[in-house]
Amino acid sequence: VKVNATVSIEKETPETERPDTFLRGSENDASSVRYRFEKMIREAQDRVCNAIEIADGGGKFKEDVWSRPGGGGGISRVLQDGAVWEKAGVNVSVVYGQMPPDAYRAAKGAAANDQKPGPIPFFAAGISSVNAPGAPRQWWFGGGTDLTPAYIFEEDVKHFHSVQKKACDKFDPTFYPRFKKWCDDYFYIKHRDERRGLGGIFFDDLNDYDQEMLLSFATECANSVIPAYIPIIEKRKDLPFTDHQKAWQQLRRGRYVEFNLVYDRGTTFGLKTGGRIESILVSLPLTARWEYDHKPEVGSEEWKLLDACINPKEWI
Amino acid sequence: VKVNATVSIEKETPETERPDTFLRGSENDASSVRYRFEKMIREAQDRVCNAIEIADGGGKFKEDVWSRPGGGGGISRVLQDGAVWEKAGVNVSVVYGQMPPDAYRAAKGAAANDQKPGPIPFFAAGISSVNAPGAPRQWWFGGGTDLTPAYIFEEDVKHFHSVQKKACDKFDPTFYPRFKKWCDDYFYIKHRDERRGLGGIFFDDLNDYDQEMLLSFATECANSVIPAYIPIIEKRKDLPFTDHQKAWQQLRRGRYVEFNLVYDRGTTFGLKTGGRIESILVSLPLTARWEYDHKPEVGSEEWKLLDACINPKEWI
Repeated sequence: VKVNATVSIEKETPETERPDTFLRGSENDASSVRYRFEKMIREAQDRVCNAIEIADGGGKFKEDVWSRPGGGGGISRVLQDGAVWEKAGVNVSVVYGQMPPDAYRAAKGAAANDQKPGPIPFFAAGISSVNAPGAPRQWWFGGGTDLTPAYIFEEDVKHFHSVQKKACDKFDPTFYPRFKKWCDDYFYIKHRDERRGLGGIFFDDLNDYDQEMLLSFATECANSVIPAYIPIIEKRKDLPFTDHQKAWQQLRRGRYVEFNLVYDRGTTFGLKTGGRIESILVSLPLTARWEYDHKPEVGSEEWKLLDACINPKEWI
Repeated sequence: VKVNATVSIEKETPETERPDTFLRGSENDASSVRYRFEKMIREAQDRVCNAIEIADGGGKFKEDVWSRPGGGGGISRVLQDGAVWEKAGVNVSVVYGQMPPDAYRAAKGAAANDQKPGPIPFFAAGISSVNAPGAPRQWWFGGGTDLTPAYIFEEDVKHFHSVQKKACDKFDPTFYPRFKKWCDDYFYIKHRDERRGLGGIFFDDLNDYDQEMLLSFATECANSVIPAYIPIIEKRKDLPFTDHQKAWQQLRRGRYVEFNLVYDRGTTFGLKTGGRIESILVSLPLTARWEYDHKPEVGSEEWKLLDACINPKEWI
């Protein structure tokens, strides 16, 4: 009995230092979009890690650099057991090679009839940042730019969405409403009929726009992570909390685990292609919890959060 | 963007009392294998719950009965925050109806070319029991009859496997070796190249044997749960443990979550068919943990457990 029939791409190799670029041969051309995209996400990684270390005031990121013999590599940075964050991960990866058909379907979220025969060449580069503060009455966001808090502070959600909207509006007034809805649709835990959090923006496969514009928009989004997120942490990190509130945060993190392992394209793609497991699963929280048939009391703060996950709201 | 395109079977309805049988109409025939199988698993559920309540000496099971308009139903029993068990679930379900093709593939673990067009009629009944003691230096087992402890007590593993072997040997001397290997192959976390635990027996789709024999073998297996598992709990439940040991147990439970959400056929089948979520996900532990790049010290007790998950052993 084989549970999963996909073949895996080769394992990664640890590296002792960061290369200037993970691109090789003809890929390594400073004017190419690939090269500039890598540069942008690596700069964003430096800035985000720096901002988090300062806000945490205690923890330091641990760095792992790795490469794949077939092409590409990445830099994983994780801060664990900090003063504010239980676990914060900011990863950059630049991978390319041949993709097994199953992985292609996971990445595209495509129906079976969309499948192509044989391996598909791919290039994927990205930055992902998943941040889980220890205190439950704060925020965290994951998988790009969505917010998955345990409790709602309306001014914080408005702030977060406003920063996203501002970044979008610089490019196209239709972006924010479209990508806000896309986010609500994407971070959907189908088996619970609820979203994992309060949304943000999400976009994928914007093939109708030119590469320069997309690079510029992606840069704008990367640059809005710090102003959208860090002020919220600063404001809420010292709020006291009860055991009950901590347990609720852990339950919401359980939902986050369910989304990431069952539905998230990046995660399911990574698991199927035999990517670097510790980098892929750094998105899983330090601790999570599942209580049988837990239902928050109607009208409670917990209930309000759940209600907003079931019925997405317009925050701004 | 739709992440998951499967259609769901209709939702379950809560019931105020247990029916004599979940079978209806022509299905409800006391001489049929379906009827006798349901009776057997419901008796096993009563016995297992009773044995757990006695061993726990504090917690009581909470029961939920539910039915599906299209056919079948189930009884979920969960004991949470007991004196010994953090969470113990013993569920019985008897469901039938039409299965969407995606769910069929999840259930069969079949390759895409195995797919049949249109919905497939199905009948599925079973008992599942997932038990998670609070103390990490004890045992738990899940998904039928495998053992997923945090630490190895060799005499306990031998005892557990011996009870399984004895049950198998009553039917066929080839059963234990075949089903032991099948178990090691099934409970495999491919992306980590490790098993979720120390195995046991696993079998599925034994269509070569007659139904009477299979009913009798399934009964024998159900009856061996208590003698295989409860003596181990009795022996280990009062062992002291450190924070370090507790954290390791939580990490192993994280692996259990990964297996169940990503690979387990019962879980992925249930999620795709829109089964009763709280019953399906009762297998998830009360608490779990993910530490970035955790590696036990070579030669430590934690390392020994991990080694046995990576390299399955012959215990008897």
